[in-house]
Amino acid sequence: MPGSSYGEQFKITTFGESHGEAVGVIVDGVTPGVELDEAYIQVQMDRRKPGQSSVTTPRKEYDEIHILSGMFEGKTTGTPLFIVLYNKDMRPEAYSDIKNAFRPGHADFTYLEKYGIRDHRGSGRASGRETAGRVAAGAVARKLLERRGVSIVAYTKAIGGIECETFDESIIEKNPVRACDPVAAEKMVKKVEHLASIGDSCGGIVECRIRGVKPGLGEPVFDKLDAELAKAMLSIGAVKGIEFGKGFEAANMLGSEHNDQMTKDGYVTNNAGGIIGGISNGAEIVFRIAVKPTSSISVAQQTMNIFGEEQTIETHGRHDPSICPRVVPVVEAMACIVLEDMYKRQAALHA
Amino acid sequence: MPGSSYGEQFKITTFGESHGEAVGVIVDGVTPGVELDEAYIQVQMDRRKPGQSSVTTPRKEYDEIHILSGMFEGKTTGTPLFIVLYNKDMRPEAYSDIKNAFRPGHADFTYLEKYGIRDHRGSGRASGRETAGRVAAGAVARKLLERRGVSIVAYTKAIGGIECETFDESIIEKNPVRACDPVAAEKMVKKVEHLASIGDSCGGIVECRIRGVKPGLGEPVFDKLDAELAKAMLSIGAVKGIEFGKGFEAANMLGSEHNDQMTKDGYVTNNAGGIIGGISNGAEIVFRIAVKPTSSISVAQQTMNIFGEEQTIETHGRHDPSICPRVVPVVEAMACIVLEDMYKRQAALHA
Amino acid sequence: MPGSSYGEQFKITTFGESHGEAVGVIVDGVTPGVELDEAYIQVQMDRRKPGQSSVTTPRKEYDEIHILSGMFEGKTTGTPLFIVLYNKDMRPEAYSDIKNAFRPGHADFTYLEKYGIRDHRGSGRASGRETAGRVAAGAVARKLLERRGVSIVAYTKAIGGIECETFDESIIEKNPVRACDPVAAEKMVKKVEHLASIGDSCGGIVECRIRGVKPGLGEPVFDKLDAELAKAMLSIGAVKGIEFGKGFEAANMLGSEHNDQMTKDGYVTNNAGGIIGGISNGAEIVFRIAVKPTSSISVAQQTMNIFGEEQTIETHGRHDPSICPRVVPVVEAMACIVLEDMYKRQAALHA
Amino acid sequence: MPGSSYGEQFKITTFGESHGEAVGVIVDGVTPGVELDEAYIQVQMDRRKPGQSSVTTPRKEYDEIHILSGMFEGKTTGTPLFIVLYNKDMRPEAYSDIKNAFRPGHADFTYLEKYGIRDHRGSGRASGRETAGRVAAGAVARKLLERRGVSIVAYTKAIGGIECETFDESIIEKNPVRACDPVAAEKMVKKVEHLASIGDSCGGIVECRIRGVKPGLGEPVFDKLDAELAKAMLSIGAVKGIEFGKGFEAANMLGSEHNDQMTKDGYVTNNAGGIIGGISNGAEIVFRIAVKPTSSISVAQQTMNIFGEEQTIETHGRHDPSICPRVVPVVEAMACIVLEDMYKRQAALHA
Repeated sequence: MPGSSYGEQFKITTFGESHGEAVGVIVDGVTPGVELDEAYIQVQMDRRKPGQSSVTTPRKEYDEIHILSGMFEGKTTGTPLFIVLYNKDMRPEAYSDIKNAFRPGHADFTYLEKYGIRDHRGSGRASGRETAGRVAAGAVARKLLERRGVSIVAYTKAIGGIECETFDESIIEKNPVRACDPVAAEKMVKKVEHLASIGDSCGGIVECRIRGVKPGLGEPVFDKLDAELAKAMLSIGAVKGIEFGKGFEAANMLGSEHNDQMTKDGYVTNNAGGIIGGISNGAEIVFRIAVKPTSSISVAQQTMNIFGEEQTIETHGRHDPSICPRVVPVVEAMACIVLEDMYKRQAALHA
Repeated sequence: MPGSSYGEQFKITTFGESHGEAVGVIVDGVTPGVELDEAYIQVQMDRRKPGQSSVTTPRKEYDEIHILSGMFEGKTTGTPLFIVLYNKDMRPEAYSDIKNAFRPGHADFTYLEKYGIRDHRGSGRASGRETAGRVAAGAVARKLLERRGVSIVAYTKAIGGIECETFDESIIEKNPVRACDPVAAEKMVKKVEHLASIGDSCGGIVECRIRGVKPGLGEPVFDKLDAELAKAMLSIGAVKGIEFGKGFEAANMLGSEHNDQMTKDGYVTNNAGGIIGGISNGAEIVFRIAVKPTSSISVAQQTMNIFGEEQTIETHGRHDPSICPRVVPVVEAMACIVLEDMYKRQAALHA
Repeated sequence: MPGSSYGEQFKITTFGESHGEAVGVIVDGVTPGVELDEAYIQVQMDRRKPGQSSVTTPRKEYDEIHILSGMFEGKTTGTPLFIVLYNKDMRPEAYSDIKNAFRPGHADFTYLEKYGIRDHRGSGRASGRETAGRVAAGAVARKLLERRGVSIVAYTKAIGGIECETFDESIIEKNPVRACDPVAAEKMVKKVEHLASIGDSCGGIVECRIRGVKPGLGEPVFDKLDAELAKAMLSIGAVKGIEFGKGFEAANMLGSEHNDQMTKDGYVTNNAGGIIGGISNGAEIVFRIAVKPTSSISVAQQTMNIFGEEQTIETHGRHDPSICPRVVPVVEAMACIVLEDMYKRQAALHA
Repeated sequence: MPGSSYGEQFKITTFGESHGEAVGVIVDGVTPGVELDEAYIQVQMDRRKPGQSSVTTPRKEYDEIHILSGMFEGKTTGTPLFIVLYNKDMRPEAYSDIKNAFRPGHADFTYLEKYGIRDHRGSGRASGRETAGRVAAGAVARKLLERRGVSIVAYTKAIGGIECETFDESIIEKNPVRACDPVAAEKMVKKVEHLASIGDSCGGIVECRIRGVKPGLGEPVFDKLDAELAKAMLSIGAVKGIEFGKGFEAANMLGSEHNDQMTKDGYVTNNAGGIIGGISNGAEIVFRIAVKPTSSISVAQQTMNIFGEEQTIETHGRHDPSICPRVVPVVEAMACIVLEDMYKRQAALHA
């Protein structure tokens, strides 16, 4: 199928461009009879939306969701949930100066090459706006996972070279960069604010922990739990890498160091990050993703335009100096969707 | 669908356990009328097979392939290619001492938890033996990609902490670790041989370069080219991470550094690794994967058995001290499969 | 995947209940750069909508479509088309008297058994209203098929025992039952009006002809062209059977009669209905479907309610005495969708 | 995906041509821990194989199955079952006289048009031989359905214009045409033997009854239980139509006649054939398929060859005068596969 759907038995299909009339998602395969309301979903939307704090874009998006099907008297019916967000702050004219230029780091050139047609109003499907549908669908999945005792938390591990050295889950939602270390958080905010002031941006690392997954989840051979999570994370626009457990550090380890030994109480270490052979082993599932610096910067850059001419470009506008804090809820959403789908597939196998 | 298939329009489905009677693959969606023979595929199989050199397991597998359908008079017919490899050197008795113990680093415990049944003869579907079908299918995809002018090469970038510092493609198949730097290669061989002598193992990094892909390949939103490659690579047993272009290094970069600027002649840099917004940009596609140390080591380790008792275990036998050299052809195979599928999907979109 | 999607490379996903807030469809895999407008789609919507004539329900639905994504400056962009129809004439209170009873012929009982939850406001996803999204998506497919020289026409072949004996394509859209024989059409209208007056309904047969398909379309083994058409047609609520070419009559024929012999100019007969071995043979594709009588009738019937009690029921309201005339555009839409998908899959195979 | 796979969660993928080296199937998604042996499957294979009786082809095929993966100590492991049948009685030279001619009723012409390549040795994937893999996979599904209390029986309802008027299930496997009426069976045998003697063939009708399915099975909207069964049945080579319950007769019925009324004890009638709104209603599921006359006849027919020349052709050889008796186990197999898949999907929804 074309690329706007994810999942086998818990399946989401998104639509919408950043400067079109709406974005949204159809969620098919929702367990019937589960209590759900728009407020529950809106909480997640608000974590993703722009303009939350000093370190995110001041651009105002309307992230108010509407559920138009699949619910009855406060419960899911098992039929497709349709969730829509109408765009209201569309300002395509803001993009008129970049109408013909390919913005460095953006998908302008590649989309034109793929489709042979150019919608110059913002980034279209490649915009971060597209993730709104994912976050809405992820909240539905999260609701279903709660019943299974599964919880998922992501947070900024590093931004602009500043790394968290402690882990305090309670502060994540209390600092604007969603870091897990209060000292690092403070430094990160300063760094990001400085970059914003000079029109530049920076990358970072987001880490995700999934708890409560019993051993046995995941579908070998091609649909391993880590393979599906990797696909889901790399499908997020700014993500350039993923690693599980020790990840790339494993390249420097010996087998005798990396193998997680077992006692009756479970694994002694968690170098594998909770997944062995593509199947959960009961330990916390841990992965990290590499987030590239936001492409939109107001520093002058060399580029080409659609006429094949060279030009310089400065992408002024309302952009996030680091996208990490807003990637966090998207990572969680995609992780929720992957897991819920895996649980349903596991149920099918054993049915 | 269950997890033994990959691909939408170029689709592979594998079967077989390491100690069963055969492993193999059905390849569906093969372009008809293409010249192909078993010898072409066998070349790739021989790169994957054990016992190639001093640094791979001396275990002898029979990697001779047989094409039983989908061909007529030396050409593909467009119907499913079925490729089988019969197992002949099965020695399940070699596994009798580990019949009841969960080998650290292996999927013994997770498979039992998932399926509720234990086939104690080796690693079953989690065995490296499973990749034989992938390599066979990958050779078919490679044949189809040749017609498109696409070439794919992978190699060992690092092993056991020793990293390649130069890149000489011509030596890759001429050194037993498949490294791209002759000086590093020599050191790696020594390191691996030493580890083999003490019954330990080490991890490494494999890098892959894909050339000849024009701009425009990849399916946003969920089936981005990098997302599909990430899934395909993480579906390989020993892989714990992947990164594209600058990858995790991007976390420390500024937008003004990371953005690939353009001239009329193309991109000035390739920090993105050839993919932007999930679509190829015409530059070389570059990614690296983290390979964990081989799990089977003869060093004594603490573990649990199926009765819930603790015990120590030493996995003697015929194992690779580093799996990198044999992962290389599997990485190439999976990359070929992903790309051929993407080309077919692109053709469908524009049809 | 759950059941609200159809198609591999031209893929539709629908949502919405008859008495919810909206129904609609996401169409993914649309060829980019094709001129399309809402008016083109609206033509098909108007053929499906209720209240068109004396023989359809006087119920007024708002079948005005809105395209909210996937278009730019009058052309498709290749990204998902999202088409929505807001419900406006919802009168769930009209259903209050049947709130607890299972209407004979309707899916009330089976939906409750499947989902364990009852949305008593009309027929939900089992409502004919659900087909609006299909017709919209079908119009998109029709646009793409026009470029291939393919045309599709369906019509009422029989209603209430009255069968068309001649075939005059020009009159189909000019009579309220969409019959192909003017004499039969007149009798059918009288029959249907009579049934409406006594609160009963009748079934019929709809025939479909597809022209311009060159030999070679269809995917053996499981996705044969006739198999996909059969699935697509049986997915329409009121359809109870399908036959291709001579269909059930073939059961009484000899091989020497049924085999379509060939000359240099093509097939001498078309008993196969244009499909052999699941692949188009270049002749007109012809199939017929059996349409059951509308389930909603105002004649008293015996039934059960959700409390397990027996009761009688009369389904008063605004219903079609025969659904055939409004099934016609749905049949065409689904045929368009199947064909466009098959063309895209054929392109993928040969890419 | 290409067309050689069926099923979402119980998934089969077949390969093999009639005159290649082998045919077979990968069955993925098999419930682990279920007792199964080759003998159980072989029973079904023997019902399908040629040469069973005076009314089937005297051609001898080797239908001995081999399970090469997915089993351990007599139980399924949950990993892919691979089942192969090696071809041994290949006589491609028997087809040399028809090497260049398109046999009427066969897929020779359409396959060439689709693939652009001609494998003239028999019917390739369009051969009845292809169904061997389906029957093997169907036996696996049947085993799983037994645990659910579901049973499936198909039989010849009519052949060559002779129709069964009584239903005695006990005689089905005891007469060579697999009819359900002993008087009709005798007439059918005579008719078929006569046709065989003059080198002609005839069509027929096969009916299938599925018992033990509780209300609630099936996936609206597109994957309705009847839609999936229709696709599965039309994917069988000789099938030209399908109808559920009253089927085409419904076209002549009134709503007041066709609606199945309910009492506390269930439905009073079963005009719907056990499926309403695409979901099982607890009544027996009943459908009939139209089987065309065997295409291979030795009567002289007009045709074209690959050089575009007209010629006459007589397909001598070893063929079934009516394929109905051998279609019966294929119908059962496909019905089993559809149902098992639906059960697994239902489990996923409610998980």
